[in-house]
Amino acid sequence: MKYSNLYIKTQKESPKREDSRNASLLIRAGFIQKEMAGVFSFLPLGLRVLRNIENIVRDEMNKAGAIEILMPVLAPKEKWEQTGRWHTMSVLYKLETELDRHSALSPTHEEIVTPLVQNFCKSWKDFPVCTYQVQAKFRNEPRPKSGLLRGREFLMKDAYSFHTSEEDFEKYYEIQKQAYIKIYERLGIGDITSVVAADGGDFSEFSHEFQTRCETGEDTVFHVKSKKLSYNKEIAPAEAPPVTYKDEKMLPMEDVHGENIIGVEDLAEFLKIPVEKTTKTLFFETDTGEFIAAAVRGGYDVNEIKLKRAVGCKSLQLASESAVKKITKAEIGYAGLLGLPDKVRVFMDESMKGRMNFEMGTNKTHYHTVNVNFGRDLPEPEQFYDIKTAKTGDLYPDTGEKYETFRAIEVGNIFPLATKFSDAFKFKYIDESGKEQPITMGCYGIGISRIMGALAEIFQDEKGLKWPMSVAPFQVYLASLNKNEEAEKLYRELQDAGIEVFYDDRQDKKIGPGQKFADHELMGIPCRIVISQRTLDEDSVEFVDRHTGKTESVKRGEVVKFVEKFLK
Amino acid sequence: MKYSNLYIKTQKESPKREDSRNASLLIRAGFIQKEMAGVFSFLPLGLRVLRNIENIVRDEMNKAGAIEILMPVLAPKEKWEQTGRWHTMSVLYKLETELDRHSALSPTHEEIVTPLVQNFCKSWKDFPVCTYQVQAKFRNEPRPKSGLLRGREFLMKDAYSFHTSEEDFEKYYEIQKQAYIKIYERLGIGDITSVVAADGGDFSEFSHEFQTRCETGEDTVFHVKSKKLSYNKEIAPAEAPPVTYKDEKMLPMEDVHGENIIGVEDLAEFLKIPVEKTTKTLFFETDTGEFIAAAVRGGYDVNEIKLKRAVGCKSLQLASESAVKKITKAEIGYAGLLGLPDKVRVFMDESMKGRMNFEMGTNKTHYHTVNVNFGRDLPEPEQFYDIKTAKTGDLYPDTGEKYETFRAIEVGNIFPLATKFSDAFKFKYIDESGKEQPITMGCYGIGISRIMGALAEIFQDEKGLKWPMSVAPFQVYLASLNKNEEAEKLYRELQDAGIEVFYDDRQDKKIGPGQKFADHELMGIPCRIVISQRTLDEDSVEFVDRHTGKTESVKRGEVVKFVEKFLK
Repeated sequence: MKYSNLYIKTQKESPKREDSRNASLLIRAGFIQKEMAGVFSFLPLGLRVLRNIENIVRDEMNKAGAIEILMPVLAPKEKWEQTGRWHTMSVLYKLETELDRHSALSPTHEEIVTPLVQNFCKSWKDFPVCTYQVQAKFRNEPRPKSGLLRGREFLMKDAYSFHTSEEDFEKYYEIQKQAYIKIYERLGIGDITSVVAADGGDFSEFSHEFQTRCETGEDTVFHVKSKKLSYNKEIAPAEAPPVTYKDEKMLPMEDVHGENIIGVEDLAEFLKIPVEKTTKTLFFETDTGEFIAAAVRGGYDVNEIKLKRAVGCKSLQLASESAVKKITKAEIGYAGLLGLPDKVRVFMDESMKGRMNFEMGTNKTHYHTVNVNFGRDLPEPEQFYDIKTAKTGDLYPDTGEKYETFRAIEVGNIFPLATKFSDAFKFKYIDESGKEQPITMGCYGIGISRIMGALAEIFQDEKGLKWPMSVAPFQVYLASLNKNEEAEKLYRELQDAGIEVFYDDRQDKKIGPGQKFADHELMGIPCRIVISQRTLDEDSVEFVDRHTGKTESVKRGEVVKFVEKFLK
Repeated sequence: MKYSNLYIKTQKESPKREDSRNASLLIRAGFIQKEMAGVFSFLPLGLRVLRNIENIVRDEMNKAGAIEILMPVLAPKEKWEQTGRWHTMSVLYKLETELDRHSALSPTHEEIVTPLVQNFCKSWKDFPVCTYQVQAKFRNEPRPKSGLLRGREFLMKDAYSFHTSEEDFEKYYEIQKQAYIKIYERLGIGDITSVVAADGGDFSEFSHEFQTRCETGEDTVFHVKSKKLSYNKEIAPAEAPPVTYKDEKMLPMEDVHGENIIGVEDLAEFLKIPVEKTTKTLFFETDTGEFIAAAVRGGYDVNEIKLKRAVGCKSLQLASESAVKKITKAEIGYAGLLGLPDKVRVFMDESMKGRMNFEMGTNKTHYHTVNVNFGRDLPEPEQFYDIKTAKTGDLYPDTGEKYETFRAIEVGNIFPLATKFSDAFKFKYIDESGKEQPITMGCYGIGISRIMGALAEIFQDEKGLKWPMSVAPFQVYLASLNKNEEAEKLYRELQDAGIEVFYDDRQDKKIGPGQKFADHELMGIPCRIVISQRTLDEDSVEFVDRHTGKTESVKRGEVVKFVEKFLK
């Protein structure tokens, strides 16, 4: 492609009102344009990157035996009601028209693909099946941010597999996991991408995320070095590190008046005690209507996923202010575990264990109690739980080692669905003896446009983008410094050799070498060839590696061979 | 691809509740599945056809110098308001969310592409520009029908060009026209596809449609053989053929009581006169508030596009019942031209000319007047117009020859947009002297999924589909009759030669040769190779041409060469 045929221009300045690093740079380089919050156009070079990523993903899906189809964006309300998600999925865009029955703009396709496969596969002989698509998806994100990392409209590869047994599912889940690992290798992020255990939702213990190290990433990964295990923050099992101070003896318990002092940080400062001596108590109501209390050491948050498992309930939600007041007699910020009615089950995090002289809500509005002690003021529970969200510095309980933690971007996930969707659609198979049996499903997602955003976030420097070779919009940036006839010849030679060349043929006097080099660096094409009077006088061209910055002179007659070698 | 890996099955029976020939067959063959009215999934073989069509279109667009991008489906309401189409485009899907500003699901992208190009192109040096995308489009069709021919969600190639002059636009319009002609040639419908003049909307005299002959097509094309010109029904200039009877003298005018007899057919029967003696009179109000009357000979419809031009107004709409009653003193079905107030401008179609003793609404509810005559009862107008919709049998006015008419499917259109959208966005360019100048635009659309529907509608017989080679999902259907080892070898040989093979390797005893051959014929892959004990005994395979039905025996060692020759 010639620059003179491209109607897009790069921008010197970062766009205003764009705070994500990836979108800001991609917009400056002319790869994307923002149309509204979380909605982007892909411009010619950006589209090439997107397609390169898509093709790598497609290739690995095909190798994993998945069959490509294309499902529609519009999905009928009835199917979303059948799985219950019409009402529970908050990001679902709903289309309500006079003419039509209502429909959803699909953010994921279990509701379409399950009946689709059901339509064709009935016998045990028809399984396993894995089918996928690459398609625009829609999520009504309340606050889309992070550029291409979290959009309202985005390009996604979503695969779904169907199995006659748990074992068969697990075997295929591993095949997909390996396909994902291969994809990240080919995308140039194999060495910085980890398989991370994540929440499995209501129907599975775990799912897995693929997390790519990036200091600006939204997620934190907790890594156990000795076990080569990683967890996401939501589910990492965590042991609080011991506190550094030591109390020798119990002090007299005391109620302190502290009006409107609510957060543990403020409270610690007000009471002149370490944060670790404060206690955060929350009250929940479960799906069965039980009222429970959960308490963690100051500095931690209560983790609802862990708490739900500890309680053994299907779902829970924070108790209402009035319910808390009715049971504890205090406003929410002053409620604690002291003197609770017996019927309230109490779940204490292990971070509470072994503390002396700690603080706790008095269950009297505007009062906090200090120097609370187990045994004397509060019965020590038979069992402590891990119901806190892990944080940097925490220990991995099984080995006691400190987690390595790092920031990361989620670049894909694979998810056991068990029989959640096949059950919703009464999708069974007939086994060899003629009996109906349940179907186990899995789903496997990669955000193609999200990956483009992640790569832009990771591979960049102060000059611009630095695409990995496999996804770069072009392999070579050929800059002609007013020697277009010779450059044109080289352009053709390189193209004839099957090399993808972006040819900067602009002849405008206002566009000097500096501008051309800056554009190349901003666009992040892996290498640059400069042809000028100076290089031609030496029967050579200048070759610049965008990643290392290394510059060398290459004989004119050896350019194609040199580039071919570089590209390998 | 092996059939055993495909989880899709063909169906013996046509699907119920599917009245379009294309969808019915495509569903039976397992190429598509209907998800809701006008919304389809593309299954593995269907997706391959879709991609083949898409790639031919993409290739010709690239050759025409158009640059590919990808714009989003979601478009902000503001931009659609800026062009006025938020309120006027009845098929626009509108997304109204609590969280978001309202947006449209784009049925076309002028509202996005115009500001996009405006963002980058300002100087005369930046033009011309043509940019395109292949993307899912959405139209809230009140009654989606005709399978893939008219959907609510469909795949579309839409290109938009921007020019500094009318002349430059016209030059490029011709380049696109030629690219379209080339596309239809490559799709195998070049010889049955015509360029047809169509309405240019508010801003251009003409646009052009590409219409492919098909007896089940929704459209009628009017062709002038001597001029090699074609028109669509909406705009074909038309002269009514003379009537076959002859009145000798004027008869006395008479008012006949005929309650609730409204349509011209019923009226002719009731009055015992030829339909050609009846008159259809309609009343309109123009955008400037003028009340006008339009009359055509019975058997014709008033054509609003032609009438608008005759009147010289921007828009018009049928007058309300009350307005008609106020002016004519009669209910709509009994209103005519007799004794109208002078201020009502009357437009009579040329089909009215030269009639004697004709019928007309009496302008008295429940009465019809017969034996009306120009001169005596009604002044003969100075000018007759062509304000009727053409019908089969009509003459082309310039030459007086009878139109050839045929049914057709619209498979693309190209449209001069003049400055409608550039003006709406105040998009001007700076000319060489520094002055702002208007930008002329064009748009060029092809429905990719619609073309797939059209090809299925056209290329089929009682056995199933008959894809043109260029879009067929596979080039060869290899059927193994329980000789899978030998077939597997041939499958690999053919694939190694770069031939796309669908290998029917099913070993289920219930699936006999008949089923395999029927599946091949239903799927419409251009040729079939059968390998069986019988053919192997003769060191050969059986080769069947799906289009001609011709069967021949090919030596086993010469299969690849034979197929390569066939595919050329």
